[in-house]
Amino acid sequence: MLRDLGMIALGGLAASGIGWILRERHRDRKVPILSGWPRVVIVGAGFGGLRVARGLAGADADVLVVDRHNYHCFQPLLYQVATAGLEPEEVAQPVRRILRGIPNVRFRMTTVSKVDLAHRQLLTSDGPIPYDYLVLAAGSTSHYFGMPHIAEKAFGLKDLNQAVALRNRLLECFEMAVSEKDAARRAALLTFVVAGGGPTGVELAGAIVELIRLVLVHDYAGLDVKDAHVVLVEAGPTVLPTLAVSLQKASIRALRQKGVDVRVNCPVKDFDGENAYLGDGTIIPTRTLIWAAGVRATSVDSEPALPLDRSGRIKVGPTLQVEGYPEIYAIGDLAHFEENGKPLPMVAPVAIQQGEMVAENLRRQIAGLPLQKFVYHDKGTMATIGRNAAVCQIGPLRLTGFPAWVMWLVVHLVQLISFRNRLLVLINWTWDYLFFDRAVRLITRD
Amino acid sequence: MLRDLGMIALGGLAASGIGWILRERHRDRKVPILSGWPRVVIVGAGFGGLRVARGLAGADADVLVVDRHNYHCFQPLLYQVATAGLEPEEVAQPVRRILRGIPNVRFRMTTVSKVDLAHRQLLTSDGPIPYDYLVLAAGSTSHYFGMPHIAEKAFGLKDLNQAVALRNRLLECFEMAVSEKDAARRAALLTFVVAGGGPTGVELAGAIVELIRLVLVHDYAGLDVKDAHVVLVEAGPTVLPTLAVSLQKASIRALRQKGVDVRVNCPVKDFDGENAYLGDGTIIPTRTLIWAAGVRATSVDSEPALPLDRSGRIKVGPTLQVEGYPEIYAIGDLAHFEENGKPLPMVAPVAIQQGEMVAENLRRQIAGLPLQKFVYHDKGTMATIGRNAAVCQIGPLRLTGFPAWVMWLVVHLVQLISFRNRLLVLINWTWDYLFFDRAVRLITRD
Repeated sequence: MLRDLGMIALGGLAASGIGWILRERHRDRKVPILSGWPRVVIVGAGFGGLRVARGLAGADADVLVVDRHNYHCFQPLLYQVATAGLEPEEVAQPVRRILRGIPNVRFRMTTVSKVDLAHRQLLTSDGPIPYDYLVLAAGSTSHYFGMPHIAEKAFGLKDLNQAVALRNRLLECFEMAVSEKDAARRAALLTFVVAGGGPTGVELAGAIVELIRLVLVHDYAGLDVKDAHVVLVEAGPTVLPTLAVSLQKASIRALRQKGVDVRVNCPVKDFDGENAYLGDGTIIPTRTLIWAAGVRATSVDSEPALPLDRSGRIKVGPTLQVEGYPEIYAIGDLAHFEENGKPLPMVAPVAIQQGEMVAENLRRQIAGLPLQKFVYHDKGTMATIGRNAAVCQIGPLRLTGFPAWVMWLVVHLVQLISFRNRLLVLINWTWDYLFFDRAVRLITRD
Repeated sequence: MLRDLGMIALGGLAASGIGWILRERHRDRKVPILSGWPRVVIVGAGFGGLRVARGLAGADADVLVVDRHNYHCFQPLLYQVATAGLEPEEVAQPVRRILRGIPNVRFRMTTVSKVDLAHRQLLTSDGPIPYDYLVLAAGSTSHYFGMPHIAEKAFGLKDLNQAVALRNRLLECFEMAVSEKDAARRAALLTFVVAGGGPTGVELAGAIVELIRLVLVHDYAGLDVKDAHVVLVEAGPTVLPTLAVSLQKASIRALRQKGVDVRVNCPVKDFDGENAYLGDGTIIPTRTLIWAAGVRATSVDSEPALPLDRSGRIKVGPTLQVEGYPEIYAIGDLAHFEENGKPLPMVAPVAIQQGEMVAENLRRQIAGLPLQKFVYHDKGTMATIGRNAAVCQIGPLRLTGFPAWVMWLVVHLVQLISFRNRLLVLINWTWDYLFFDRAVRLITRD
């Protein structure tokens, strides 16, 4: 089984290398003079937006992707950037690089301020951009449930800059602790509270505790690193609530075994930069609260307003068109697509599958053909807890421990964009696994 | 010859791998209780400071390295970070990682505000640090010769943050140019002026022009990248003045062939963020001036003042001790060591050789033995101009073109700290060479 997975990984790497070389042959094809083709504008270069853009390669459409960053970020590995395991550049890829071989797709780095529905144009920092069809794929942002102190003082993990800021903070806390003589203040510096028991919180808590116990313990010989304390706080009764109960239990067991203090039924209520206040009255002295307890759709300002659900997601119909606007599609985290009376979860596979469907539907719409209805295929969930430990639920298959961990590695490696990033990530992972190292422990803030 | 160089590179990689594994065996040795040993404090974790620290491994001294960053930066490759060829983390290495295996050497990340000579202590952001022996190895910083506008608006290339800021700027200029309709403003956005014809200026100008002509030209199909303009401006009569005249000429020829507009006898006089004003009256409309035309010693504030030369370097005697202070050594860029009536140049090999000598002299001084006098061995100079082009002067040997370029690659690869960084840099170089790519073209500023 493990050998098979290894073969899959190698096969994936090789296939992507070949695919890359084939794509390169189109390098010199220039953007054609686009006239008469409908203009499709895609807002957001995340998993969903890029899938739409790639799906429209060669279509009779003039496609423009806009994003406020010039790169696509592979969010599932951000927690490894935050814990000094991967370099930020390894989980990001320039959008122009990704779209290079596609002559009818262009990119513009800009910030969208408003959608002017009446005139069918976006208002952006670079002036108005007209569209005939619009795809909203701007993703999600942290949700603090109206707690302003937490919004102001907690660390997020939604983009590359936040991940680097968190890495800087973790390492700075250790540097400060070295020269801190007061034991209580030193303990507070070495206490890290992660709020939220979803995949991000679980993976981050596991990675922080391993960074401390396997790596930093050797860097700070003068410090008793056993004083360091990682707390995972979850408001609900369990971590990873979408998984089977047996996997939830396995996760909590693995986290505790690695040294994470897991507390369930215990929401974080406030944080003043010195103390985290929990729902059960506990006060944890800490300088670092990481918020992984809630996300909400990126709000899209439009005139008039688009139809939203109570949590701010844009309501879409079965074809992923926004209700009342057949020329506008919304996908991924910011779209409310109902299945069995519930909106789909805000996860990457939903965005990817919806992106593929929207590309198909746009082709049909442009050609005057009837549109297709979206059906979500849940391919499973996985979360890694650390070295040799993960949980994995794929249909009837339930894995824990080492096999789940290998499965997680392979799935994430294959999904990374570009052969080069896969190679570099594989080297980093191998290196860290063999030598108990995390090479990127740099404080890069001035 | 090339095969030999390849063997050297592989040998270097292998040797460093083995050295690394051997060092790892000392991992679990704890810092001994240090009592009675003299305290040696080293200010600066650059080439010189680290050499002193490593040279004191196992000596009867309690050594502390302080630096305001927690990493050592391999400055000779910063220009590749600035031009999207290498990731910042690949040219940096955590100081604690480097010093891990050495029980009598510790590290503290802190900023030194003053040297209190009378009480033999450093005043730092973490409080006073006493010393018995002090090594000043704080390097150099950009020198703007009293031109405040340039100091304020030009980009430097002295540390990791500056390199990333320059990378962001280069790429941002292209993103802005894409949506700029005014031809003159677009041309100014795509004009990059490098001031200074030393190795940094030459290498940077060559790397920028190749980034544009080999890589970005494919990213910005809508833009006529041939409008882009890279100007290298040097106040003196030639570039690379320390090299032989034949190599200077070869460098200028290679730069021009690659598309750099080289202008000698032409100092930059002012820069207002919109125009660069040259000494010959020329005005170049540009948004980006990169300053590689001067460095000066980092100023060390002390009470009373240490003896300085006119350019602010600390005067040291033949044993590298500061004049009048036998317990203080100064090395590298901030030290004025006279040889044949001239101070030594501000280059890495001087700092490295002086660092080795100071470690030796400190051992002797602690043991009550007579000190040795420093003699600099000039091992040559090299500069790379771009793909397949470099110049190289080693004793009587003078190389240009491809052989010099391979020599440059090997020398720099072997000098990088850590096997992992060597491996990743080698992969990046190979990738970029084969596929005409620069993978790190991300704009990471918020």
